[in-house]
Amino acid sequence: MASLFTKIIAGEIPCYKVAEDDHFFAFLDINPRRKGHTLVVPKQEVDKFFDLDDELLARMGIFSKRVAAAIKKVCPCDRVAVAVIGLEVPHAHMHLVPINHMGDMDFSTAPVNLSKEEMAETASLIADKVLL
Amino acid sequence: MASLFTKIIAGEIPCYKVAEDDHFFAFLDINPRRKGHTLVVPKQEVDKFFDLDDELLARMGIFSKRVAAAIKKVCPCDRVAVAVIGLEVPHAHMHLVPINHMGDMDFSTAPVNLSKEEMAETASLIADKVLL
Repeated sequence: MASLFTKIIAGEIPCYKVAEDDHFFAFLDINPRRKGHTLVVPKQEVDKFFDLDDELLARMGIFSKRVAAAIKKVCPCDRVAVAVIGLEVPHAHMHLVPINHMGDMDFSTAPVNLSKEEMAETASLIADKVLL
Repeated sequence: MASLFTKIIAGEIPCYKVAEDDHFFAFLDINPRRKGHTLVVPKQEVDKFFDLDDELLARMGIFSKRVAAAIKKVCPCDRVAVAVIGLEVPHAHMHLVPINHMGDMDFSTAPVNLSKEEMAETASLIADKVLL
């Protein structure tokens, strides 16, 4: 059965899309740690990040770097942090979170509350800045 | 001034070393989230992960994959999670943490308490399994 993320990539489930190329898809996390919190997923449905083959893993780092640069332009922050945890959806995904403090990466706290309009605007602003 | 990690790589500060190649160095985090919690750092002293050039970023993913595979062999876990936060030491570093639950990645909780002997043994066992 297709994973949640495969359905998002296929457009069967709506998302706030940020970027896409032949191999990867990026969209806003609907439970954001911070405004601009983005997920990067490979189009190939692989459960565990480190089970991606070397080439795809290498490319995912570079794609994520491009997306992170755009996030940083739109969402003021010290840096864009990375997390790959992956226990919830069995389809490898990298969190990109614009952070200023350690606590901004605390996944045990409640997500920030953003309206649909804020999410759509944020995604659009980031998408405009992504240079793949 | 050389960063803490550059001093560790140079052997000026001791560490529990796990792996090394021309570009990267891996050693146990002295404040481990879990037994086997490892840091991967580029030998080039760059503050922010996403400021690494594309080639080094790509290589770091592949090096980390090799180290993660060894961690998983030694430290039973569902998967090896990744975090790049980097607010504490201005030298890019990737956390590799063998996890079973989301809480295993909660950096706000106290680290696990391991003796020097356990740290040394864990590093040695992982080092023996790393296939670069």
